[in-house]
Amino acid sequence: MTYCIAMRLNEGLVFASDTRTNAGVDQIASFRKMHLLQQPGERSFILLTSGNLATSQNVISRLQIQTEENEEPNLFTVGSLFRAAELIGEQVKSIISHNAQGQQSAGVDFGCHILFGGQIRGEEPRLFHIYPEGNFIEATEDTPYLQIGESKYGKPILDRIIHHDTGLNQAVKCALISFDSTMHSNLSVGMPLDIAVYRNDALELSMERIEEDDDYFNRLRRSWSAGIKLLFDDMP
Amino acid sequence: MTYCIAMRLNEGLVFASDTRTNAGVDQIASFRKMHLLQQPGERSFILLTSGNLATSQNVISRLQIQTEENEEPNLFTVGSLFRAAELIGEQVKSIISHNAQGQQSAGVDFGCHILFGGQIRGEEPRLFHIYPEGNFIEATEDTPYLQIGESKYGKPILDRIIHHDTGLNQAVKCALISFDSTMHSNLSVGMPLDIAVYRNDALELSMERIEEDDDYFNRLRRSWSAGIKLLFDDMP
Repeated sequence: MTYCIAMRLNEGLVFASDTRTNAGVDQIASFRKMHLLQQPGERSFILLTSGNLATSQNVISRLQIQTEENEEPNLFTVGSLFRAAELIGEQVKSIISHNAQGQQSAGVDFGCHILFGGQIRGEEPRLFHIYPEGNFIEATEDTPYLQIGESKYGKPILDRIIHHDTGLNQAVKCALISFDSTMHSNLSVGMPLDIAVYRNDALELSMERIEEDDDYFNRLRRSWSAGIKLLFDDMP
Repeated sequence: MTYCIAMRLNEGLVFASDTRTNAGVDQIASFRKMHLLQQPGERSFILLTSGNLATSQNVISRLQIQTEENEEPNLFTVGSLFRAAELIGEQVKSIISHNAQGQQSAGVDFGCHILFGGQIRGEEPRLFHIYPEGNFIEATEDTPYLQIGESKYGKPILDRIIHHDTGLNQAVKCALISFDSTMHSNLSVGMPLDIAVYRNDALELSMERIEEDDDYFNRLRRSWSAGIKLLFDDMP
């Protein structure tokens, strides 16, 4: 499985993803699920993927090739984030339908979910969840975060903490705690993690990798775990 | 959906279940999912059920009728909890296979999961998870709690707090917090809740209903929610 979170907050966007993939329990591997596509100063996009890895890698590669070969339309020429989401949705749909026509496709789930967010100069930042069917929903003030993959374990802490006016640093901290709870209860989500924070109108972004031995993350995990136990003991 | 927890601890057994059932989102109802069968001083059994309501109600009714009509074997005459779990498993299996033979069964999931625990005089208390296939697993010191239904949201807090030597009161508190987190994030789990606590060798047990306006539970929910927010703000 996979776990990815993306948030659209007043100050900007926050993205987090794990790197574990598995086919059953005996075929475990580590793959990046966070992908950047950007023209600094013009447009910054991030895609987080879950589901069938062949499909999601195919989608990402095609989107990249389209921009490199100036195929029209592509992510660097579309006029809006909405058009960009449509373009990605169409790619997802065409790849899945192509694969599903094969002879060996019975019972295989080719589906892939994508969290897609970013900003184009002149537009507000936006965030979408693109479904395997190619359609999508958008995060709003009422529901500022979206999740894909193994999302249930880490949802309660997001529901308690994240609002559209949560600050970016607090939001990253909350995302990390949500990952900690998930990794504690589910083996199919695993380190290292990828994090990206996009401040409104920056039009430039980078991702940071959090490794197993990351000081801050380990300190946070320990304090959270100890804090929860103390809090629990304090309850009436 | 449904959410049920059962724990087998050094001091005894703890059970908790919600009461919401739904078929889709427009057919919501309230049904008890916790069922007691006992001969005070001799044997106490509790069953928590999830899955197809027609199946689980059928199982419970048959088990009750067997004891009332002295049909052999029945839960009041079997020699051990293991035999009792086998008997329940056979009932589950025969009801599901009977229903699945009908003409309109295509696509219907008749499955039902049961958490079954209790004590027979002369034996230790035991706790089982009985699957729709009729087979079962047993809780042990290493994994002292079992869940059925919508179990992921409320699992992280159980993983952090519950060990086999957790006290009964602490375990009930933890179960309630696990329900709070679940109900916060998922509409298909709802109040009121049923709770039962069995102290080793009591051979008698009763259940308690926690209603929407329950003072203690509301106080616990508020303090937990406020405590989590403070703890979060305190994190590095």
